[in-house]
Amino acid sequence: MPHIALPEGLPGIRGALAFRPATAKPLNELAEVLLFGPNSLAPGERELIATYVSHLNDCHFCQSIHGAVAAAHLDGDEDLVKRVKADFQHAAISQKLKALLLIASKVQRGGKHVTRADVEHARTLGATDTEIHDTVLIAAAFCMYNRYVDGLGTTQPLDEAMYRERGKMVAQKGYVEGSKDYLPAEAAAH
Amino acid sequence: MPHIALPEGLPGIRGALAFRPATAKPLNELAEVLLFGPNSLAPGERELIATYVSHLNDCHFCQSIHGAVAAAHLDGDEDLVKRVKADFQHAAISQKLKALLLIASKVQRGGKHVTRADVEHARTLGATDTEIHDTVLIAAAFCMYNRYVDGLGTTQPLDEAMYRERGKMVAQKGYVEGSKDYLPAEAAAH
Repeated sequence: MPHIALPEGLPGIRGALAFRPATAKPLNELAEVLLFGPNSLAPGERELIATYVSHLNDCHFCQSIHGAVAAAHLDGDEDLVKRVKADFQHAAISQKLKALLLIASKVQRGGKHVTRADVEHARTLGATDTEIHDTVLIAAAFCMYNRYVDGLGTTQPLDEAMYRERGKMVAQKGYVEGSKDYLPAEAAAH
Repeated sequence: MPHIALPEGLPGIRGALAFRPATAKPLNELAEVLLFGPNSLAPGERELIATYVSHLNDCHFCQSIHGAVAAAHLDGDEDLVKRVKADFQHAAISQKLKALLLIASKVQRGGKHVTRADVEHARTLGATDTEIHDTVLIAAAFCMYNRYVDGLGTTQPLDEAMYRERGKMVAQKGYVEGSKDYLPAEAAAH
């Protein structure tokens, strides 16, 4: 049971967002820009970064839903998502994404762990400054979303089919459009 | 020197926000709602929570600027800000705020550290569900802002007068209005 009286029937972050529409708006807009908006990193790559950080933070809801969104962007390849979580250095992803995941893992421990060498390594593999910026901010943002979801003791179902279905919807519509089924119209609008 | 080519002359988060206006907009709007918007917790109380979490995360820029904003809201009482950072249980603040700072410190370590007993304790001291929600989200959000600022290796001046002056401005204008001197008009607009 959640620590505060969140609306029922809305698992994970959705219950928290519906409880407080004023904060839901910028939280969904941030996810939209970082994970769904136009970017030289593919949505699947950005969702893998979000999933990996949520896995490091041991947030069941976030790693499940973003893992499902990632898989939906990656032709349904759920095995790849699992391999990235277990050992990304040996997963079938680009060397550039591996370098960005390493930066993300440092951010998860604390911003000061990121070194100039980590960033230079990503750059030699083709990462742009904007991609490095977005990787740092995605990792930092999931250190927020994960704490928000766990810190309120939200309901986090174990049903994989729920995440898979919702993940497909979010991969198609994004975070702002996808929030219209649980937020009042004003908070869900751009 | 920052890890990526951030605009010069804008210390801390301002350089990062100016580098990427698309993410600056929701980041400033989130700070505005959480720290400056209408709330039963006073702006000074909310800024103390932000300052304390930034202190726990050892982010010089964030603890300095939010400490300065807090002091500006608290009749310039910089000593109180220092006492909250050093040992909030013995600072001259309400028992309710102490209970909320305890929850914030748990969120900083990870969302799962928050217990039902921590929340009940805050509630018996008068905290509402919205105040508990906002405390969790302020603490979670500063785990993001701190990592963003440190993870990009932003410039973080030691000059206390700079933070004091800017803190007064932010305490008066808030985060969205206060961003107009470093962001393009569209990203600074509500």
